[in-house]
Amino acid sequence: MTYTSLVTGGAGFIGSHVAADLVRAGHRVVVLDDLSGGDAANVPEGAHFHHGSVCDPEVVDGLFATWKFDYVFHLAAYAAEGLSHFIKRYNYTNNVIGSVNLINAAVNAETVRCFVFTSSIAVYGHAEPPMTEDLTPAPVDPYGIAKYAVEQELKVTHEMFGLPYIIFRPHNVYGERQNIGDRYRNVIGIFMNQILRGEECTVFGDGEQTRAFSHIDDVALPIARSIENPRAYGETFNIGGDTPYTVNHLAGAVAAAMDAPLRVRHLEARHEVVHAFSSHDKARDILGVGADSVSLDDGLAQMAAWAKKHGPQEPSVFSGIEVSRNMPPSWQALVVPSEQSE
Amino acid sequence: MTYTSLVTGGAGFIGSHVAADLVRAGHRVVVLDDLSGGDAANVPEGAHFHHGSVCDPEVVDGLFATWKFDYVFHLAAYAAEGLSHFIKRYNYTNNVIGSVNLINAAVNAETVRCFVFTSSIAVYGHAEPPMTEDLTPAPVDPYGIAKYAVEQELKVTHEMFGLPYIIFRPHNVYGERQNIGDRYRNVIGIFMNQILRGEECTVFGDGEQTRAFSHIDDVALPIARSIENPRAYGETFNIGGDTPYTVNHLAGAVAAAMDAPLRVRHLEARHEVVHAFSSHDKARDILGVGADSVSLDDGLAQMAAWAKKHGPQEPSVFSGIEVSRNMPPSWQALVVPSEQSE
Repeated sequence: MTYTSLVTGGAGFIGSHVAADLVRAGHRVVVLDDLSGGDAANVPEGAHFHHGSVCDPEVVDGLFATWKFDYVFHLAAYAAEGLSHFIKRYNYTNNVIGSVNLINAAVNAETVRCFVFTSSIAVYGHAEPPMTEDLTPAPVDPYGIAKYAVEQELKVTHEMFGLPYIIFRPHNVYGERQNIGDRYRNVIGIFMNQILRGEECTVFGDGEQTRAFSHIDDVALPIARSIENPRAYGETFNIGGDTPYTVNHLAGAVAAAMDAPLRVRHLEARHEVVHAFSSHDKARDILGVGADSVSLDDGLAQMAAWAKKHGPQEPSVFSGIEVSRNMPPSWQALVVPSEQSE
Repeated sequence: MTYTSLVTGGAGFIGSHVAADLVRAGHRVVVLDDLSGGDAANVPEGAHFHHGSVCDPEVVDGLFATWKFDYVFHLAAYAAEGLSHFIKRYNYTNNVIGSVNLINAAVNAETVRCFVFTSSIAVYGHAEPPMTEDLTPAPVDPYGIAKYAVEQELKVTHEMFGLPYIIFRPHNVYGERQNIGDRYRNVIGIFMNQILRGEECTVFGDGEQTRAFSHIDDVALPIARSIENPRAYGETFNIGGDTPYTVNHLAGAVAAAMDAPLRVRHLEARHEVVHAFSSHDKARDILGVGADSVSLDDGLAQMAAWAKKHGPQEPSVFSGIEVSRNMPPSWQALVVPSEQSE
């Protein structure tokens, strides 16, 4: 039997890899993406691309009526912990209202076998690492609050309507097809783009904050395959790399992968979590996922080769800032207040 | 000095009482209400009424620019635990996006001394009663999830921007000016309207579920006065009645207050919390609030006198249902699917 799957955000980074994995697995794949962060060129061959937003209930309901989806992989999101303080409305509209449109449609369709949602490590906030899935979330930014609300919404929807779900909390994912022109998120992409543009790599604070970085291959395939595993249903999984590195170490490793001298400029520390990495024991036990199957150096070398071919990108300017107080000065120069952009 | 205060939902039930208390305390009061549940006649004399929605950022930003508010009392909400499963988008739009518009405006204004938010007992979900404020919320319906998200949002906004806040979690409030025509919430108002219309009082399930009911006088004044108490800032308070009653007992008490024979019709149990009442020790300690200062019988007698004068109301029909699966049959007959209402 051929399954029909919706991948939201399927022209984006993680979404396009999940969509490609599903095409390879024989699914009929429909990609819904508004191209706010993605690129139509990322949609894998064999997938049907629909240009539109999860925030538009008519678009969403229309797709469900046409395709009668068996599976929904909801990866569309504006994933910016740090920036989300300054774009609260945009954050909640995209990440909560958009998700709720899909959940409503999935309940009404009565054909959906599983709703797979990518949440984020941001739900853990300042929890003591390594974070395990049984910790009670305590997010410290609007992005994490929105993701946590959707996680709760999926549980409540399951209780009320029986919609099956699987939740993933990936973190710091990097690799081919990442939007390296996004100035506000994804430090590896930012560093590569800065190097390609002949700029210094910018590090917030002293650079001793630690993160574990996840190569896309260690994230996308487990998400795509999770639906085949009955033990995964109703569960929440951390997913991604195991080994924490300081941002300073990372800058050196990226420069080496790019074959460039290391040039770093430290900026004032911003409001962010100092140490964040999560336990992946549960994903290992239930999904059989081996963490760090791609080492940081191998992953960076692979991405650097792609980034050089892809070329430097003009850093994006976010044009809908709602609050500009207390923004890192380096960001302030890059934003256009929403009144001026309309 | 004369303070200027915004009361959202100030044409509604609790909001109009808070607005009246603030007018009496000498505040310049601006009421913002979209009249979706309220009535312009409820806006107290002396308050300025602006007809508009918290969901409209231009309206919100315009009011803040004009009035330079000292205090914000955010009571606008669509408060329907049970119905919120079936109107998820409406729930999150009104209760999250609307709140975020106000929070953005309050941060940008830089004049706001305190943002007072009415959350709900719904954030506790199935917690063992009596619920205390230090319990970790675990809501079981979209309404509670939305209220909890806004609570978290206020904490994060305080950390990031220094906006002071006070959160209240009232429960089962009743009294004069309640919308007794709302078919989906406020059991006391529903019973009174049914009696006025010569109908039987409808009870979901066996009626042995318990709730503590809060007379409006025990809720509105503590909310209005909280801003004068420095110890209240940054805190969350349960507020309302202490004594739990079964819904069966309540039906008898309402019939007695209305001078009517008790006629009850039991309906199939719906998806709801069986026992819900909260501890008010913290409000007593910090706010000096005496719970149950108005007894149930006195409060019902007072409300019954008003309801008789006000007369029976045509039960409202909610015209924007997004999901109609698994709805209590008694509600299903009363709703119009959203496609048909447009």
